[in-house]
Amino acid sequence: MIDKHRLERVLVNLEKEGLDQMIISDPLAIKWLTGRMFWAGERFLGLYIAKGKEPALFLNALFQFDEEIGARKILFTDTDDIIPVIKSVVDPEKALGVDKILPARFVLPMIERNVAAKIVNGSLGVDRTRAAKDENEKELMRMASRINDMAMEQFKNLVHEGVTEREVAAQTLDIYKSLGAEAFAFPSIVAFGANSADPHHMPDDTVVKEGDTVLFDVGCKYHGYCSDMTRVFFFKKEPSETQRKIYNIVRKANEDAEAMVKAGITLHSIDKTARDVIRAEGYGEYFTHRLGHFIGLEDHEFGDVAENNMALTEKDNIFSIEPGIYKADEAGVRIEDLVIVTEDGCEVLNSFPKDIQVIE
Amino acid sequence: MIDKHRLERVLVNLEKEGLDQMIISDPLAIKWLTGRMFWAGERFLGLYIAKGKEPALFLNALFQFDEEIGARKILFTDTDDIIPVIKSVVDPEKALGVDKILPARFVLPMIERNVAAKIVNGSLGVDRTRAAKDENEKELMRMASRINDMAMEQFKNLVHEGVTEREVAAQTLDIYKSLGAEAFAFPSIVAFGANSADPHHMPDDTVVKEGDTVLFDVGCKYHGYCSDMTRVFFFKKEPSETQRKIYNIVRKANEDAEAMVKAGITLHSIDKTARDVIRAEGYGEYFTHRLGHFIGLEDHEFGDVAENNMALTEKDNIFSIEPGIYKADEAGVRIEDLVIVTEDGCEVLNSFPKDIQVIE
Repeated sequence: MIDKHRLERVLVNLEKEGLDQMIISDPLAIKWLTGRMFWAGERFLGLYIAKGKEPALFLNALFQFDEEIGARKILFTDTDDIIPVIKSVVDPEKALGVDKILPARFVLPMIERNVAAKIVNGSLGVDRTRAAKDENEKELMRMASRINDMAMEQFKNLVHEGVTEREVAAQTLDIYKSLGAEAFAFPSIVAFGANSADPHHMPDDTVVKEGDTVLFDVGCKYHGYCSDMTRVFFFKKEPSETQRKIYNIVRKANEDAEAMVKAGITLHSIDKTARDVIRAEGYGEYFTHRLGHFIGLEDHEFGDVAENNMALTEKDNIFSIEPGIYKADEAGVRIEDLVIVTEDGCEVLNSFPKDIQVIE
Repeated sequence: MIDKHRLERVLVNLEKEGLDQMIISDPLAIKWLTGRMFWAGERFLGLYIAKGKEPALFLNALFQFDEEIGARKILFTDTDDIIPVIKSVVDPEKALGVDKILPARFVLPMIERNVAAKIVNGSLGVDRTRAAKDENEKELMRMASRINDMAMEQFKNLVHEGVTEREVAAQTLDIYKSLGAEAFAFPSIVAFGANSADPHHMPDDTVVKEGDTVLFDVGCKYHGYCSDMTRVFFFKKEPSETQRKIYNIVRKANEDAEAMVKAGITLHSIDKTARDVIRAEGYGEYFTHRLGHFIGLEDHEFGDVAENNMALTEKDNIFSIEPGIYKADEAGVRIEDLVIVTEDGCEVLNSFPKDIQVIE
């Protein structure tokens, strides 16, 4: 059933973009608004919303269903031309927002055949609304991260003499499920030694060695909502001086950034706080990515905690804080938590400790 | 490395659509042309091709690589505006083909900011070329179907008293892998009894019963290429008169269609041949989908064997022939093979028998 509160918030945000009407196509945005997942593959799918009008769902008749969702159903078949179907609903005198993901095979004929006064990317209005989580969403995000904290303890215990990254990673899904999660938020990253200095590393047959860094970047889904956390351990041996130094710089970057997060500051300033810590120690060039990303129903949602993003944080934004230093000949370390922005600070969703831990 | 023969064929087909230049974005189309898989997530990805010009690959610097692929690399970063990057390569005086999947967030600014004289959906030129497989592709498709034939024999033997659809389906991937396939082409469909009358059924906890139809719609990938076959068995008991009748009608529809396939006929006529067999027996309304789909690197590629498709078959097209009758109170039967179109007939890729078989 359409969540009227969320719908109202989207319409207000669309108005700020100068839009009175929009067709939303992203299945997760539709799920977020209606509570129901639709998947139409290569076929057209769209939820039409407009100020003062009943929403309408464009749906291929193949996926017909009985349930009432609070939107008029506009059914069509594989042999129908979709353009007149869209025209039967859209106000042709006004601009129409379309989803940023709407494919060219629909966008181009909509423009050519004058479905609306103008076709505009309207996703910002939806994405900004989704970026501020409501109470129900925050609770599910807390739970997903709580499971992630508990899972991390078990993941750490999977690492023993002779084991490979792939063998460890293969056991993570069952652990998540045993803790009540339904799926991965993304495939688990397990990286030993030099591999931990590649932020895109996928688990392979590398065997853990004494003195290795052991990096876990992992997340699960709980009722559709994602967690995402990174921790680094050391195998069988206290970290070397350099490893310890790098670890502590990254930890400070993570903690300093978390300490300054609050509503109404630029995302730029959060990234800069962490990056300055790393730069001051001479490792700036080894922190090769943005500080964080927004997260919710998707692991990566609209919104970057990045140096070039001058947008302001809003209360109830949820994003990751994940500084890293990647130097294959010394150490690859990333430390990541999720945070919820509050009026005057933030709530850190992960409580798994950040002290140096050696796996015996 | 760019396959020059495939590139030449695409450029010829684009010219038929009035296009001299195109940006291909579909990762599988790029893989088909370059031999290499790129995945850029939400970032821009495109292979620019044009008559008489060196191809150019637009790639986010995050995914940089050293290998030579026969295309100029145009790198950009997350902070770059992509439009001038595209403009640096595209001929602004001519129309530009874009991929049917290119999202609105790129299509709309490309139009507004005049990247080219006109932006057109150019996918037909690429898709038509991909639809005619070359020798190498045909050999991989034959192999994938050979594995599927061997796997079907083993799948059949998984069905025994007390087993559920889900339990059977869960064993199919390992069997494929043991036969040399690398993955599913799609998750295996296993359907018992009335469930076999739902063409979209996903395996559940239904237990097989004496007298049930047992439907397998299954496929694997071999070196990236897909197989796809459906067979129906009967459990513990010879089929009833009605079951046998329905089975034999579907089999005749499948075999009559396969017997008439050749190059240069309408896809419509193939669908009609099968559909007429089923209609003549009064079951027309229970055959609820198109007769077949094209297949290759993807399980469902561009091209329908459907009543409303007046396009002509071409030599080396590969598609499925899969008539069905879905009547929950009587029987759900579908029989599916893949075929390669030849000048004067077709090569059926599946040799698994279609005689009625009872699982004891």
